[in-house]
Formats: sequence, C-alpha cells, structure tokens
Amino acid sequence: MAGGVKVRAYSSSANLGPGFDALAVAHTAFYDEVEARLEPGNGQVLVESVYGPYAHEAGRAETAKKAVEELLRLTNIDIGDRNIVLRIYKGVPPGKGLGSSGASAAAAVKAAELLLDLDVPDNVLVEAAGRGEAAAAGTPHYDNVAASLLGGLAIVAFDKNGKLYVTHMEIDAWFTLFIPRAEIASAKTKLMREILPKEVGLDQAARNWSRLALLVAAAARNDLQTLGHMMMQDEIVEPARSRFIPCYDSVIEAAIEAGALGVSISGAGPSLIALSRSREDAIRVANAVAKSCRCCEVEDIKVAQTAGPATRVKW
Amino acid sequence: MAGGVKVRAYSSSANLGPGFDALAVAHTAFYDEVEARLEPGNGQVLVESVYGPYAHEAGRAETAKKAVEELLRLTNIDIGDRNIVLRIYKGVPPGKGLGSSGASAAAAVKAAELLLDLDVPDNVLVEAAGRGEAAAAGTPHYDNVAASLLGGLAIVAFDKNGKLYVTHMEIDAWFTLFIPRAEIASAKTKLMREILPKEVGLDQAARNWSRLALLVAAAARNDLQTLGHMMMQDEIVEPARSRFIPCYDSVIEAAIEAGALGVSISGAGPSLIALSRSREDAIRVANAVAKSCRCCEVEDIKVAQTAGPATRVKW
Repeated sequence: MAGGVKVRAYSSSANLGPGFDALAVAHTAFYDEVEARLEPGNGQVLVESVYGPYAHEAGRAETAKKAVEELLRLTNIDIGDRNIVLRIYKGVPPGKGLGSSGASAAAAVKAAELLLDLDVPDNVLVEAAGRGEAAAAGTPHYDNVAASLLGGLAIVAFDKNGKLYVTHMEIDAWFTLFIPRAEIASAKTKLMREILPKEVGLDQAARNWSRLALLVAAAARNDLQTLGHMMMQDEIVEPARSRFIPCYDSVIEAAIEAGALGVSISGAGPSLIALSRSREDAIRVANAVAKSCRCCEVEDIKVAQTAGPATRVKW
Repeated sequence: MAGGVKVRAYSSSANLGPGFDALAVAHTAFYDEVEARLEPGNGQVLVESVYGPYAHEAGRAETAKKAVEELLRLTNIDIGDRNIVLRIYKGVPPGKGLGSSGASAAAAVKAAELLLDLDVPDNVLVEAAGRGEAAAAGTPHYDNVAASLLGGLAIVAFDKNGKLYVTHMEIDAWFTLFIPRAEIASAKTKLMREILPKEVGLDQAARNWSRLALLVAAAARNDLQTLGHMMMQDEIVEPARSRFIPCYDSVIEAAIEAGALGVSISGAGPSLIALSRSREDAIRVANAVAKSCRCCEVEDIKVAQTAGPATRVKW
C-alpha cells in the first residue's frame, strides 16, 4: 500500500429534464482524480495537495476529506494509528452544473474503499460521498455523486425511512456540453433551488413523473430517441431555471436543428447538455451551437460520451 | 373474415404506489374478450351481445364500441358499407381497481385492428382505447389500457404537445389480488380522484418521482425486491386513498409477514395487489391475507402472474 490508490471519477449532468433530484448521467467531458495513501498518524483524513486546472477553487479539498470521513463513520472503520492522506486533481470545472464536487467526493470515497480493501455497498458509498459534499459545500448532490461513482445513468431515491437506494444503467450515448462563461454566484445551487416553485399541482407533478418513468424505461433499452424527447418535457424545474441560463433558447434551437435528440439544463446550470447517438452527431451539434451563439460568452463546448464508474488509475 | 377475430385482454393494476397515472401491470387474474366481425352495413360499430359474469354492468358494451369508433377516427379508416359487430365477454370485475373498462377497450381496439388487417402503432391503439373509455365511462385510464394492450408493465406519458408515448417491459412476477366486497360508488374513480391533494410540495413530488424512477429501473432488470419496496413508498396518492380501502393496514401487514415483496392499492382501489417471485410465494400470501382478514367482507383473493399482450384467441 506504499504507493496508495488513485481513482478517477467523471463529470456528470443531473436531472435531464424531468429527473430533478432523481438522476444524473456521467460523461467523459472532465474528471477529478483522488490519490489516497496511508501514513502513520492518529486516525485523521488529511489533504496533502490539490492540483489541476480548478485547484484554486475553495472548498474542493474539503469535499473529498469530508466524504472520506463520512465513509469511515458510516462503515465504522477505525484507521487507528494511521492517517489517510489525499492528493486531489481537480479537473471538473466547478459552478457549471457538471457535478464538480460530486466527482471529487466520488473519487475520494472510492479511493478510500480500495485503499482500505473494503467492500462497501453502492448506496453507502453514495451516501458517504453525498454527506461529505453537504458537510463541505452545504448541498448534497446524490444524483451527481451516484453517476460519478457508478457510471452511466444513475438513479437515487430515499425511501420513507430515509434509506438511500441507488441504481444505474449503461447507456451508449454521446453528449455535447455547452458551458457558458457565466458569473458564478458563490451559492449558485442554493439560488437555483430558491427560484423553484414550492408547490406544484398534482396533475403537473404526475405529468412530470410519467415522463420521467418513460425516460428511465427508454434509457434501460438505450432508446435514445425517446430519452432525448423526454429530456425536453419538464414543465416544473427547467422553465423556472431557464431564464437564468444564458442562450437557453438559441442553444436548444441550434442543437435540435443540428440533430440533437434532446437538450436540457445540466444540473442547476448554467451548462446545457445535448444528447446524440454518435461522436459525429455530437460534434455536428457542437459546431452548430458554437456558430449560433451570439448572446453570451462561451467558456467551452465539449463532446463527451457516457462515462464508466469511478475506477482505479495506474500511475 | 367470415368468422371474425376474437381477442383476449387481461386485467391490470395501475399505480403500484408512486406511479399514479403513469404505469400499470397486466395480470392473468381476469380477462375480457372481444369478438369483432364485419357485416354488410353503413359504417357503424354495433354491439351484438355482452356475456360473461359481469355482462350486466352498464356501460361496458359502450366502452368497447366507443374505443373502436375512436380507432377508426384516429386512423382515418372508413369501413364504408360494412358494420363492425362486436360480441363482448366481460370477465374482469368492474369497480375494483382492476382495469375492467381498460381491458374491454384494449380487447376491442386490438380485435378491430386485426379484423381490418391494420398495423397501428401502440400509442395510437392506447389512445383510441383510452378515449373510448373516456367517452363511455367519463375517465380514461391510459395506464390500464396500455397494460392490457401491451402486457407486462406498461408506462404512459403525454408530452407537452399532448402526444401520447407508451412503452412496456416484461416482468417475471406473481401477484396476489385482494378484492374486498366493498360497496361501489357509481363514480368511484371520480371520487377517488377528488380526495387527492390538488397541490403537493415540490420536495414531496421529487421524492415520489425519484422512487418511481427507481421502481422502473428495477422493473427493467426484474429486480422484484426493489420494485416491491418502491411500491410501498408513495407518500401522495396512496395515503389519501388508503382510509377508503377496507382492511388496508391488516392486509398489508399479513402480506408482508407472509413474504410479499410489496403491496399497494390496485388503481383507485378497493383491491390491493401484492408482489411475489413465484406462484408458491403468491399462494402463501393469499392464504395469510385470507386468514388475517376479519375487518371486511372479501369478494375474492386471486393469485395471478404477469400477463402478456392482448392477443387473438382461436375459437
């Protein structure tokens, strides 16, 4: 164990339209890596360094540390006279709705699990990572964490007793991520939650969940046409948020015209995610979106495919 | 075509907890059959006879007739100088939340499709049957219709433009149906809708749809344990209705104690549906429920398995 364990976890997009707080898809657009090793110590989790393009973002190191602490707590593991020392590569841009802190937390708990040679159920890993995120950043994103940890399209639900259930399915898809250079409020996710309606009509809620059910069934058989169409059928969360998303209408129009199967806000935004069948299709969408976009500054437009689970990286 | 076409469609249970207005499962507990034949005439749909144990229930013949008329309308088929003549076997008990009118409507549209040698998309068949039901009985049950028509677990959703989407998945499961001899209000479904909350908290709605998403994902891989658990996680519709369901608590308790994987109200009730892996398990649940039930009169307790689609019957 001298060399420790390094784990990579990918970026993710939550919601996909009607799946608010329920699902996210992992994609290869960006990734974080967390390296964990054991050293003599007194049972602490320490962050040795944070590097990579988004290393300067405050709170990122804290997320990984808290996630590992939560994992130790939830699994009743006592590391005794050792410390877990983390090194964090921060490659997922924060504040863009791309599951940045979720990727850190996912990579961290997976690295700790492998380092300690544990066999922790998926739902406990996700819960630890989500709680770590909440402790560090204020808001847990179980959907993003689950996608980064399990890969593919991940679904999370708490039952009435507060027990977390997670599942995931492979989907063979490509994505175009449109990432505006928007000013980032420090509490963006919180703000983007405050603008949501507190109450919704039961009819409206039922329409939403029937669409979500259909979206999940479509994903299960890799029916991307239906999945993409259902991504665009949210009448509750997406309409409330869309007016805060730069270029929302023009990006969607350009993407659909270029053959995207569906477009939605990625998580709480400001990024948008478009769905395609192939790399070529996703590139065509990227080009069309880049050309059309006159109304805001673009930070990046990325083509990515569905990512696998958080896994060990040799180095 | 002298002999016409006879189609059988099975009973179904809608909702399964969090799937209100979104899904239903078809089961072999009961079935309707509709025989359709062409005769010289003037473009009408006629009902020649209704027979079987529930033939006396008003409105049943009308449902099948209207469903076929809607199918002709939606597909722009003109039967010219012929009539479609229907004979209806009514085997699904009405007013029990078992998709009785949905089964009639499903059998009718399928029989007409086969009779006229059409190839109608699933969503159009479901829409015709649902509209027929609405025209005859006041309320469409697209979920029940879809399950009776397509078999297995069926999901229905209307998109923002009012286009109906339907899908279904096979599940390998057994069910125990607890059917109380409750007084049936003539407008039971309407009443059972009026008692529902008009508005729900977004948090509550999101909890519900995340559970539904997980239920659908579980069904897609035949994970009956998770499916059953999620059946019991509805906090919106089921709690509002449960106080109108005779023996609700005691039946659930007995069924779970006897090994049922989940129990929920079947559609708008008053029947309850319990989920099991095998016929033996479902019988054990049936026996336990029968023994435990002291608080209401039981009309029937049925053991059934997942039913296939509405299909032609040789006779």
